[in-house]
Amino acid sequence: MASQVNPPRGMRDFLPAEKARRERVLGVIRDTYRAHGFDEIETPVMEDSDRLNAGLGGDNEKLAFGVLKRGLSAEDLKAADEPLDLVDLGLRFDLTVPLARFYATHRAALPTVFRSIQLAPVWRAERPQKGRFRQFVQCDIDIIGEPGIAAEAELLTATLATVDALGLGDASIRINDRRLLIGMLGGFGFVASEQDAVLITIDKLDKIAHDGVIAELRDRGITPGAVDALETFFRRPTTMEFLPFGEAAIRKALPPDPDAAVVADLAALGEAVGAERLRFDPFLVRGMGYYTGPIFELAHPGVDYSLGGGGRYDGMIGRFLGSEVPATGFSLGFERLVELVELADDAGGDGVVLVHDADVALASLLGIQTSLIAQGARVRLVARPKNLKPALEALAAEGFTRFATVDAGSTADSLEFRTLG
Amino acid sequence: MASQVNPPRGMRDFLPAEKARRERVLGVIRDTYRAHGFDEIETPVMEDSDRLNAGLGGDNEKLAFGVLKRGLSAEDLKAADEPLDLVDLGLRFDLTVPLARFYATHRAALPTVFRSIQLAPVWRAERPQKGRFRQFVQCDIDIIGEPGIAAEAELLTATLATVDALGLGDASIRINDRRLLIGMLGGFGFVASEQDAVLITIDKLDKIAHDGVIAELRDRGITPGAVDALETFFRRPTTMEFLPFGEAAIRKALPPDPDAAVVADLAALGEAVGAERLRFDPFLVRGMGYYTGPIFELAHPGVDYSLGGGGRYDGMIGRFLGSEVPATGFSLGFERLVELVELADDAGGDGVVLVHDADVALASLLGIQTSLIAQGARVRLVARPKNLKPALEALAAEGFTRFATVDAGSTADSLEFRTLG
Repeated sequence: MASQVNPPRGMRDFLPAEKARRERVLGVIRDTYRAHGFDEIETPVMEDSDRLNAGLGGDNEKLAFGVLKRGLSAEDLKAADEPLDLVDLGLRFDLTVPLARFYATHRAALPTVFRSIQLAPVWRAERPQKGRFRQFVQCDIDIIGEPGIAAEAELLTATLATVDALGLGDASIRINDRRLLIGMLGGFGFVASEQDAVLITIDKLDKIAHDGVIAELRDRGITPGAVDALETFFRRPTTMEFLPFGEAAIRKALPPDPDAAVVADLAALGEAVGAERLRFDPFLVRGMGYYTGPIFELAHPGVDYSLGGGGRYDGMIGRFLGSEVPATGFSLGFERLVELVELADDAGGDGVVLVHDADVALASLLGIQTSLIAQGARVRLVARPKNLKPALEALAAEGFTRFATVDAGSTADSLEFRTLG
Repeated sequence: MASQVNPPRGMRDFLPAEKARRERVLGVIRDTYRAHGFDEIETPVMEDSDRLNAGLGGDNEKLAFGVLKRGLSAEDLKAADEPLDLVDLGLRFDLTVPLARFYATHRAALPTVFRSIQLAPVWRAERPQKGRFRQFVQCDIDIIGEPGIAAEAELLTATLATVDALGLGDASIRINDRRLLIGMLGGFGFVASEQDAVLITIDKLDKIAHDGVIAELRDRGITPGAVDALETFFRRPTTMEFLPFGEAAIRKALPPDPDAAVVADLAALGEAVGAERLRFDPFLVRGMGYYTGPIFELAHPGVDYSLGGGGRYDGMIGRFLGSEVPATGFSLGFERLVELVELADDAGGDGVVLVHDADVALASLLGIQTSLIAQGARVRLVARPKNLKPALEALAAEGFTRFATVDAGSTADSLEFRTLG
């Protein structure tokens, strides 16, 4: 027996049923975002290595697959000081760095406010584990060129419409603002140089809870008075009184005197998108350091992980242009969504199987197939197998719904169809 | 001014209009192949380097982009003897090697006769030139597990239906058979060891004509008697008499006594697919050495290059399994097709622009957008620009067809639409 043959580590093949399902989900996402006025673009899977490693990708930069320069000699290898000397290209680890590069290349040809869709694979050399892959699809929308909350309102409206179209109407969005988060930490007394480390710890709140956060901050030797203040805030008395998303709810969740303009913006966002779909979370961090304003995460009661997220990142898109360009984006975690979505199984459409014997003329068989296709069917030709029953069962499982036997005298009109499965 | 920012050499970005066009063409190809009973699959863009370099890819293996191993140290670089020592993965240069690997991995889960669709990018580190790119899309269908001409008949029927659906109904298929070609060369007296070189020269017939082929063969010191025999055959008297594709036409185009079984198979193929769409070409070579039976090329009167091609390659799919598996495939040259195809421009669908002033409440604006989308429209929101006319012209060019102005009192029903462009 031949040895096991597999795709590369951490990467997946998609068989017909799963591929059809993925394409259907992608189609719903594409159509809904397009209906909301967004435009799909595509960039190459590779970018120049120095752009990928320009500091816009955070920790993901370390996970980029590097592509070896072409035409290297043995001497080139000896002369190289480090691996990066041998690569000139890399596979993208997200869709945001390529978008910044795309925008710098094509700005003159794009509308003043550009709404982009990118539905495309990215690659990360992570340690493979359950649910984490080295090639996976991201679904990003971004609005570039609009500094105000109107951009976030469109972004969230389109995102919620998309998850609704996928049958996940229970989804809601956790929302925070980087400026409120930084203001709150400053108020507690964390010094500026500590804030990145503090945010990394707070980001684990879902996993390690209040006590775990406080313990970790103390372990790390963070300003003790500030940690005390955070602990006191964690333990503040709360009521069970429900406040819908809005100015009162935001103020109630924060220490006194938050930035009033930011609070008003978030409240306006809730009014525009619908308060019932948003939930303010003062400790939502989002990993990436490049966020500058409102940040979001998509939650669904069916799962305890996020289905996507994003935020405003005004400093980044303009980096390759040398100017500041306002931008905000939302990325759906396609691999998680596709697991959760139950779409009506229309993979087969009107799936027809034609079972034929060897004596049927190919021309007449293909003619019958063509006329059934013209009537809207999907038609699979099957040479009569020794064992018809298991073959038909497999075809039913594939989504085919009826079958007929074609013999030498058959025409498209004379076929007698029977139901499959 | 910032320096020019570009995608990597030989690779392209796709802006919204071109991306939409490409997705529409891909959709037609996918739907038509699916209707003919083929199943779409997907494999990762990377394969293990030793599989990519297993000799199944011909000259394309040299063009593979290699992916650097992760975690290499400076010492690893010094210790390497050649570049391939440093890579463990590579980007696929075609869709056939991945299909062979996929089939070896999943054979047990696939039907006895497996009809696959792959619509996906491949990468080749070629010298970039007009119309030749380092990332480009291939559209392959393959039938695995059917040794007889029925497979070719389905393959060509589906391919012709697809080009018809793309509005290229004038396309026809040039056809030959590797066995007839080899038999003919043997008959002329070329020795077996010369045949690969002779085929490479004959493959240039379209470019260098009869005299060029003969001159090149003489230059190369190929058996003189065989070259004489080929020259005599080139100069044989021909008539203007038209013979439709079939046994008589094939025999007339070949030296006497071709392999009768092969000729009968090709004639049967013509009968099944329709003689008027096929043309026998005794000097059609196709580049790859792995072909073992009928070979094809898609021609269109509008262009002097082929739009795709393929053939039977029985020795290859089973290579990673260690067994022989019959297979035949057809690859459409997507990048060439997409240039040629004129699809009705329905990119915008019912494309609606809503021009709004700053005093319109976001919630009411988004509510109007949502209700127009529910009626089937694609809706772009545009904050009133200083100069409305050029903005509307650009939107018309993008495919939007009508616009309305939204003010503070507007509802979806009160809008007055005007035609765009």
